[in-house]
Amino acid sequence: MGADRRTEILRAAARVIARHGVRGLRVAEVAAEAGISTALVYYHFKDRAGILHRTLEFISDRAERYTAAHPRRERDGDPRRDLERSLLLEFQDRPEVRENSTAWGELQATAVFDPELREALAEARLIWIGELTDTLGRIHPAAPEPARTVAAERLTATLEALSTRWLSELLPLGHARELMRDAIAVELAQLARQPAVTVFD
Amino acid sequence: MGADRRTEILRAAARVIARHGVRGLRVAEVAAEAGISTALVYYHFKDRAGILHRTLEFISDRAERYTAAHPRRERDGDPRRDLERSLLLEFQDRPEVRENSTAWGELQATAVFDPELREALAEARLIWIGELTDTLGRIHPAAPEPARTVAAERLTATLEALSTRWLSELLPLGHARELMRDAIAVELAQLARQPAVTVFD
Repeated sequence: MGADRRTEILRAAARVIARHGVRGLRVAEVAAEAGISTALVYYHFKDRAGILHRTLEFISDRAERYTAAHPRRERDGDPRRDLERSLLLEFQDRPEVRENSTAWGELQATAVFDPELREALAEARLIWIGELTDTLGRIHPAAPEPARTVAAERLTATLEALSTRWLSELLPLGHARELMRDAIAVELAQLARQPAVTVFD
Repeated sequence: MGADRRTEILRAAARVIARHGVRGLRVAEVAAEAGISTALVYYHFKDRAGILHRTLEFISDRAERYTAAHPRRERDGDPRRDLERSLLLEFQDRPEVRENSTAWGELQATAVFDPELREALAEARLIWIGELTDTLGRIHPAAPEPARTVAAERLTATLEALSTRWLSELLPLGHARELMRDAIAVELAQLARQPAVTVFD
């Protein structure tokens, strides 16, 4: 029951963020959206920062679910096709995807102003980039890890910015998808050539 | 005098946006920051939407200035080096650059929630991508324009997302610069191979 209630609150928080943004978000709004008392929200999440932290994880997990949720028969064990599919599934005209991407982008943008959010974002980003680095390794086992990590960093950056352009109607959905598909092809071609490893200090 | 006053107001608006964001921004705050009356701000810019529209242009022009403002002797007519320099100058730990990039990112992020901003953003983006497409043409004259346009779209997307990560301290400045430098190299290598032209419907 506790877990269900928590999930309900996080689902409500994601909806509120996707609708109005994070700035000025009050705990009372999240409570109203979830149809429960503000006190109960505080009971489950301590404070506003706690809610935002958990909502970020919730959004991140949910994205992982819908980008992986394709029928088993469509999976063919081709890691390249799986990579393409999972990144392109972030560009879908479905309310769930729009809401999730809107909330994710808004949390990213807000972290520029709100240092409290950064730790949670850094964690989520590390996991995302780590997983993508592994997937790139399944496609090009000979590519050194640092090269795969920078490719993953750039692919996620491209995805986020294209997503923002799509959601603010600067790019049509199909165009954003094409740009993303090409970006994947360009990075994979680069990894296939095993570029010199860039070392950061 | 009128032009100076307008510029002063826009400079104040950019400062306020970089400090607190666009959401909840009131015209009175901009007036206070500029040290003039609210009525005078309205006289020059009609309404809040007008201020935001012009501030976006102002920020865009200012970025063009500091990314082009390197000593003449450093220019060597090498379009590739000029491209690198101009994109990397968006990553500098100088208050002017931080302020400008913060305000630009915030206006992008806000357009997801505020359709009024989109027209101005679409214009600014078109100019930026158009100029970059031309520069890419000076580097690889044989690359077809559609291929250069998508490269420009991806490079600006990468730049924006890396800039947000830098400004929210998810990436150190030097790392963000390396990722950007590599992204330029990857796109230029791709253009040198004259990829199949992607046509959008």
